[in-house]
Order: sequence, then structure tokens, then C-alpha cells
Amino acid sequence: MSIPVTAGRKDWESGRQEYKKRVERGKPLTKNGSTKIVDSDNAVTLLEAIIQPGDRVAIEGNNQKQADFLADCLCRVDKSKVNKLHMVQSVISRPSHCEIFERGIAEKVDFSFSGPQSTQVSRLLQESKMQVGEIHTYLELFSRYFVDLTPRVALVVAARADQDGNLYTGPNTEDTPAIVEATHFKQGIVIAEVESIVDKLPRVDIPGDWIDFIIPTGKPCYIEPLFTRDPSRIRDVNVLIGMMVIKGIYREYGVRSLNHGIGYATAAIELLLPTYAQQLGLRGKICTHWTLNPHPTLIPAIELGFVDSVHCFGSEVGMEEYVAARPDIFFVGPDGNLRSNRAFSQAAGHYAVDAFVGATLQIDRYGNSSTAVVNRIAGFGGAPNMGCDAGGRRHSSEAWVKIGKESAMMPSLIGDMPRGRKLVVQMVETRGPQGIQCLVDKLDAWDLMKQAGLKVPPVMIYGDAVTQIVTEVGLAHLHKCASLQEREAAIKAIAGDTDLGKQADPAETADLRQRKIVQTCEDLEIDPRDANRSLLVAQTMDELVEWSGGRYKVPEQFRKPQKE
Amino acid sequence: MSIPVTAGRKDWESGRQEYKKRVERGKPLTKNGSTKIVDSDNAVTLLEAIIQPGDRVAIEGNNQKQADFLADCLCRVDKSKVNKLHMVQSVISRPSHCEIFERGIAEKVDFSFSGPQSTQVSRLLQESKMQVGEIHTYLELFSRYFVDLTPRVALVVAARADQDGNLYTGPNTEDTPAIVEATHFKQGIVIAEVESIVDKLPRVDIPGDWIDFIIPTGKPCYIEPLFTRDPSRIRDVNVLIGMMVIKGIYREYGVRSLNHGIGYATAAIELLLPTYAQQLGLRGKICTHWTLNPHPTLIPAIELGFVDSVHCFGSEVGMEEYVAARPDIFFVGPDGNLRSNRAFSQAAGHYAVDAFVGATLQIDRYGNSSTAVVNRIAGFGGAPNMGCDAGGRRHSSEAWVKIGKESAMMPSLIGDMPRGRKLVVQMVETRGPQGIQCLVDKLDAWDLMKQAGLKVPPVMIYGDAVTQIVTEVGLAHLHKCASLQEREAAIKAIAGDTDLGKQADPAETADLRQRKIVQTCEDLEIDPRDANRSLLVAQTMDELVEWSGGRYKVPEQFRKPQKE
Repeated sequence: MSIPVTAGRKDWESGRQEYKKRVERGKPLTKNGSTKIVDSDNAVTLLEAIIQPGDRVAIEGNNQKQADFLADCLCRVDKSKVNKLHMVQSVISRPSHCEIFERGIAEKVDFSFSGPQSTQVSRLLQESKMQVGEIHTYLELFSRYFVDLTPRVALVVAARADQDGNLYTGPNTEDTPAIVEATHFKQGIVIAEVESIVDKLPRVDIPGDWIDFIIPTGKPCYIEPLFTRDPSRIRDVNVLIGMMVIKGIYREYGVRSLNHGIGYATAAIELLLPTYAQQLGLRGKICTHWTLNPHPTLIPAIELGFVDSVHCFGSEVGMEEYVAARPDIFFVGPDGNLRSNRAFSQAAGHYAVDAFVGATLQIDRYGNSSTAVVNRIAGFGGAPNMGCDAGGRRHSSEAWVKIGKESAMMPSLIGDMPRGRKLVVQMVETRGPQGIQCLVDKLDAWDLMKQAGLKVPPVMIYGDAVTQIVTEVGLAHLHKCASLQEREAAIKAIAGDTDLGKQADPAETADLRQRKIVQTCEDLEIDPRDANRSLLVAQTMDELVEWSGGRYKVPEQFRKPQKE
Repeated sequence: MSIPVTAGRKDWESGRQEYKKRVERGKPLTKNGSTKIVDSDNAVTLLEAIIQPGDRVAIEGNNQKQADFLADCLCRVDKSKVNKLHMVQSVISRPSHCEIFERGIAEKVDFSFSGPQSTQVSRLLQESKMQVGEIHTYLELFSRYFVDLTPRVALVVAARADQDGNLYTGPNTEDTPAIVEATHFKQGIVIAEVESIVDKLPRVDIPGDWIDFIIPTGKPCYIEPLFTRDPSRIRDVNVLIGMMVIKGIYREYGVRSLNHGIGYATAAIELLLPTYAQQLGLRGKICTHWTLNPHPTLIPAIELGFVDSVHCFGSEVGMEEYVAARPDIFFVGPDGNLRSNRAFSQAAGHYAVDAFVGATLQIDRYGNSSTAVVNRIAGFGGAPNMGCDAGGRRHSSEAWVKIGKESAMMPSLIGDMPRGRKLVVQMVETRGPQGIQCLVDKLDAWDLMKQAGLKVPPVMIYGDAVTQIVTEVGLAHLHKCASLQEREAAIKAIAGDTDLGKQADPAETADLRQRKIVQTCEDLEIDPRDANRSLLVAQTMDELVEWSGGRYKVPEQFRKPQKE
């Protein structure tokens, strides 16, 4: 077909021209006009020189480390120069992340998690100060950085830099490689805050020629010990649910590789491995390979030889020295420090592990679960990525094959073709604090959808992905249910004293127990009287320190008495 | 519970000790005893010094670039020193990859794709010279590098290195970052072959301190132009199917972001964008954002302004100069060359695009599809990862929401909860070369499972993930089917003159057409007489070169007459 070859677009280097122009504008602010180093006093001016109205801007920050200095600086730019920004960032977690919108500097955000600022995000939305693009799981947001949400400017953070701009992140590499690669190679500009500039780095985490400007701040960036749980606050009911998970799921399916979500429920399991799982003879047979941040509550299991390998999304405050002393277990550089990497750890949590096990706040009659609460827009971080079956997985571990064989709805989906699947376990107490019902007819996510103008309710994990729900009443193997109706019955059977639980038909429940679709403590031969805190291998933070040989340093927040 | 804190494992640095010991053994082979550079004459000796029996070893290689020098060297090690290796590698594609097994140096392999050596792999398996661990999709194999298949030694390839060991990959970065990161940070040893050592690299793709030894080979590594399709070999039937895809799917769902599989079917679509899609007024409305290797057949669409962005898994031989001249479209470094990255592009192909569109060889009555053929063990590369719904996806593009709403089986899976999904399109002619039936009752994958000792048949894409099948007879929207039985009927309706097609019930087919579950050309208002090669915007390799302004260099294989 005849179309003139010359009919098309003419300008192919607008991004590169823009890049050069902006870097030139930043150059006079560098220390001697030739290096990449900019004084922290000039940081706001640098942002004003580099960022233009309407830019797509990434601020680094995740559960742990935060480019908080740069976020603060972005709050202080002249709004007449820098405005209408479209933020693309893993988390909205610092007050400054909201202030950027409060002040009218940014107008739209695509993100993954905003737990600590969820009320503020909801308010900003209602006041039309913030538009929410979409809420993602982390790996999905990184993926869009390479497709349709590529940042024009990235504001990232590392521990130290050298004169050439090489970055050392220490244990907190986290999101940096994904953000920098997407930005730099689409002719975007990368600005890094670091604590200090040194002559020689202990290792290079990001090559210097990927970085345009470095700002030494003279202080460490903000880091949150988000994955730390004090064993003293684990309750007997956590122990009970943990025992059911270990005996009814980990042992039953031979779960060797897994990810644990955050919370007391999973912390309890970690502290039961050396005791209850050991009694069951499971050492070396379950929980050997992990994608997990360095949970302090995993220390005893590591010390006792339960664990072969842990790959980390990020680090955890206070765990640095312990991790450094266990290079056979963790991914550690020759400098002695952890190399974390959220993109790879999320990919591994999606594709390489047999089970995702986490807690939730609300589950509906179909097994859809969510931690979304009205008036809070929080997102779900990594949970959707790990709490789903990886449809592209083809390797066939014992656990994957066994649960696939048991999946009663599989034939209605793909005929007689056998296929395995991931175990996705959701733990929930039937009632939460103040007696709130956690197993419900309809998720609060429906209201939140309307409130936030989303196209579908923000579900954390969908019912067809969940293989097991565990409450204090029992364990429901949802994957064994042959229909949605049967799944509903199984959920009701373990819903206890909730409106949903009251709908359970005793005869149907008995039938489900008979068919091992529902298992109570009795069915699992677990004596609830055994389920108490004394079964935890460590019961205080101090005992965790002891298990670590003094290497674990309890973060300050956990040294004073905590409130719920 | 009382367990002595001192009861556990004692040795935590065995990997690090091993690393140090082996690197020391390699040091005398470096040029002056202190650098990382080893003469290519000493490469075999280096491998014998570094690799030990039973090691897990990664050889880099993918569709495109190959660490072929190191693979050849591994064939030549003394088998009494190096044996029982467990290879973990993306592809088995070079004769040397098989020879390592033929000679008894390696005994087990975990991989993703082995198309070019599929007959050899099958033979080695039957002769018990090779054990196949598992067959993966690429991102899944990378994921396992961080969990339970971490390499002890990695043999990788780059274009150039500097004295410090920094690597420059040029456009073919591909798998290198994933392999090196997993190996280096779990105290493994990384050996890189490069064409040459230079004083200053155009850019750093891999930091030098992640690399232990560099071997300059004096010649470029082997690179295969795997994604090149000569437009002159596209047939009218490809054009017909392409028109149905563009009108019946891309337009209907507003597919903006996508990945195309390899082959003439997708090449036809790419060459129809500037003509047929343009006539339909679709420029800027479809196919704007891609995860795709630099397909030469996409050049005209790029030139005419159809395409906003392309992120690449790898490069493509001959496309280097063209890509370098289009930095607004491709991810390109300041050195002017593409930065590809298979891990990120696969993540993006999984999570960030609305559609995966590819061809297959065989589809069964349930919609399960496979390219597996008896006596060939080939794997599927990236297809399973992209050809499945991403269960963790939460962002709601128009295409994702629309096809989710139409998905008739969704309510039986998650109740009244709305959810979107990815479009997964499989194109197949009802009969292949020599009249072989491509729509079948049972996949050959079943036989292959037995032959290769797999636990489940090697399915490329499962029927419940496929949203549309397109044959020359018509388009079946499988996602609109409310049951497996209805899906079977829809597949039979477009199965033409095959045994499966003959089972189609004319009344049921009419009903499916009425309900727009099945659409023929007539239903789509496509005149088959229009469907001929003259509609392709470029019909020869020379015309692609012309569209590229002379920047595309036709690879040698495509300059001589080709055979099918």
C-alpha cells in the first residue's frame, strides 16, 4: 500500500533535548560547575531548575527508606514555577507527600500503598486537591514505569555516593534500581540524596553514570521499622491460628518456599517453627526458602537451622548486623551488607514461592478480602502480587501440584488439563477490636470505590485466588469447593459469631468437615488448651536479641512501652 | 518455650569462604595477578579452577545474545575435575549447550526455552544424559535464582569491559542484570566474556565490583536475529487474521498497551497498522505503548506516529542504528544505544499491558494451547508470563475493565465483585503445513509429558486465560462464554475443516454469532477479498530499510533467499 515514507513524525529526540537543557540549567548549582554534587542548601533551587509544570515525578520511598529530604524540598519549591505534577511513587507515607498536594505543587498520583497517610489521602481527594490515577501493587507500578508512567524526573535516596555519582544503598537498595533504570534510560533526570560523599564506596549499587545530581544531606534518611513485631504482643489466638496453619497447611502441602505478610499472625507462625513445627518433625521439610524482609521474629528459626535462604524486598531497622553475620542465609554483598531489591523480591514472591500467607481485616461471603476501610485510602503494597496465583508459573513443586489436584473448580475452567496453583492463605479473626465483624456480606471496599471514584472496588485478594481461610474457629480449604455456593458454605462454617457465621447450616458444615473441606481444631487434632504464648520460642524483644547473639538492635520505638 | 539459644547451626559463612577460596584459585590466571582480566587462552583453566562438581551454573544466553565463548569453554573442561553440574539457564540454544551434557559435564538443567535444540534435548533425555528439572517462563526462572536456584557460578557476556570490570552490554543487556545480581550477592562467582577491554566505557550496564573475572575474546558474541520476519513471506491469510484482530479486538477494546509474540501473524498486524488501522481512524487510539523487541516490521508504524513507547527485552540484529535514532520511542542511554532488560520487560509484559497477542501451533477443545510437539522439548520462553491474566493487577484501563465486564464466568468465581482482566489473544490457522489439524481434541503436550517425565502437560497458555482465538474462519470471544461447554462450542465454530470443526452444531454456531461470541469476517464487515498482501505497508525487507531512512541493516540471513 502506498504511503509516502516521509509522511510521518519528524522529531524523535525531544526527550533528549529536554534532558540536556535541564541538566544544563542544573549545572551552575553544582559545587564546581563540573561535578554532579549540589549543596543541600541549593536543593530547592535545583528542583526548580530541573522540574517543569506537568512533569511526571517519582519520589522514592517504600515501607522502609524514604527520600525524605527531597520530598521536603519539593514541598518548598515556588509553586508558580513547579506545579501540576503527576507523582508516581510506591508509597504516600510521609507528611511531605501530602503537603506537595496541599500546596498545589502536584495534582495527580499513581501509587501502591499509603497506610500511614490514608486518612489524609482520603481528605485531599474529597477536597479535590489530589487526583488518584490508579492504585497498584508494587511490581505493577514498576512495570508501568517502563510502559506508560515513565518518570521525567526521579528523586531517589542512597546511603553514600562517590565523586562519580556511584551510589551505595547499604541494606536498603529496595526500589532504587527500578526507578533509576526507567527514568535514566528514557532520558529522564535522576537526583539522589545521600548522607555523605566518600572517596571509595563499600560497593556500587547503582552506576554513577545513571545519576545526574547528588545532594549530600549530612544525615541518614528516614527509615521505618515496619516489619518488626514485638513477641510480647502476640496473643493466644494468634498461636492457635498459627498452629492450624503449620499443621493443616504447611505440613499437609509440604510448603517449602513462601512469603509471610506483615503482622502478629505471621510473627506467631515464625516463632512457632522452632517449637510446634519442630515437635511435628518438620524442620527441613517446610519453610526453607523465603522471600521476606528480615523479620526479627524469624531469628530463632534461622538460628535453629530451619531456614536455607531469604531474599529481601528491603531491610529492617536493627537487623543490619544480624543479617550481615548470616551471609549463607541472606543475599549479602562482599561489603558485608544485605542487598535487597524490591522488584526481584516481588517477582520471586509472585513466581518462585509455593505460598503466600497473610492476615486481612475483612473477607466477604465469596472469599474476596480487603484491608480497605471507609475514609482511608491505603492501597495494598505487595499483597495483590503475592496473594494471587501466578498464571505463568510452570514449575511443579510438590505443594503446587497437590493443591492443583485438589482444586475442585479447575475442570470447569480448563477441562481435564491438570495444573497446579499457589497456596494463598488468609488469616483473620472472626471479630476484630471492638467486636467488629471481619467476615461480612459485603466489603467496605464497595463504599470506598464510590468515595474514591475507582472503577472497581479495591480488593486486596480475590476469592478465587484464596486457597485457605483460617479463623480461630477453623480452617476452610476454599480450593476444595466445587462451586461458589460451596465456598460460601465453607466460609460461613468458620465465621463463628458473626452475621455470616449465623447463616451456616449445621448439616452442611458437618458434611464439609466430613469431606475435609473445613477443619476445626478437633479435626486437626490440635488441643486449643495447648495454644498459648508459652509455645512461642521467644516471648519478648529481649529474647529475640538473645537469639541473635546480641546482633539484633531493638529499634527505639520498640524499647518503650507500646500502645495498640 | 525453652530451647537453648546455642542449639542451632554454627557455620554461617560457608558460601563466603567458598567464594574466597575459589577466587584465590583463579587469581594466578589473571594478567598480572591483581586485575580481573584473564586471557582467553586460559579460559578453560579458569573454569576448571572455579567450578566444582555438583555446582549450580548459569550460562547466559537468550533469544538473542549468547555467552557462546564460555559455553564452548565449558565443553572443554576436564570431566574428571568438573562434572555433575546443574545448569540453570534461560535457553538451550547453542550446540555447545547440549554438548556439555553429551560429554557428561552437566547432568541436570532448569531452563525456559530450547527451540533450536529441542530435538537434541529430547534425545539427551531419552539417553539419560540430561535430567530436566523444570521448564519455566523467563521471569519465573529469574525469580527462582533468588529463592531456590541461585547459581554458584555465572558465565555471562557483555560487549566491552573496563579495567575495573565494569560491563557495557550495548543494546543487548537482556538477562545479565538478573543473573549477575542473584549470583554475586549470594557469594557466587561471576565470569564475563567480552569482546574487548577499553579504557572508558560508553556507559556502565553492570558495576565492576559485581564481576570477578573478565575474559576478552576478541570477537563479538553470537547474536540471533530471532524477531525479524521478512514481509515478503507474509501470506494473505495472515492479513485476514490481522484485520480481524485489529477491527474485532484492538478497536473494540481500545487496546493501547500490548505485547506481540513472534511470527508472521503478528508481523502482519504491525504492517497493517499504517494502512488498515489508519483507515479505521485508530492512530493514537490503539497500540501506543509496547513491550516488544525492536521488530523491524514495526518501523513503519513508528515512523507514522502510531507508537509512543517501546520497552525491549533484548535488541534485534540490524535494528541498532534505527533504535538509536528514535530515543523518544525506545529506552536509550546517553551513549545512544538501547538499554534492554528482560526482567523488567517481562514484568511489564505481565503487569502493565492490556493485551498479549501471539500465534500458537495447537489448541485443544477447551482453549488450552501449546507449541509443544512430540520428540521436541522446547519450552515457551516468555509466552506463559505474558499470556496469562496478571492476578495482582489493580489498575483499570478501559480495555481491562471492558473485557472484565464481559467475562461471563467471573460471577461463578468471585460473586458480584467486578474485576478486569488482560486480553490474551491466540491466532492459529485451522490447518498448518501439510494440512496438519491445529485445533484438536487433545494436545500433543499430553504425550510429551510422559516422554519427558513432567508432572503436568507442557501447556503454553491455559484455556481460562485465553480471551480470544482467531482463525481464518473467525474470531471466538472465549471470555464471553458462560461455561466450559459454551467455550467448546465457540472454538468448534471457528475450527473450520478439522475434526473438531466438524463437531460444530450449525444452530449453536448461529446462536453464538447472534450473541457476538463468535464473529466471522461477515459479522465484522471485513471483505475477505480485501485481505491480501497489498494492504501491507511494506512488502519486502528493502521497503523496511526505506521506511527506516536507511538505518535498518538487514541481517545477512535475510539477504539471501530463504526457505520455509
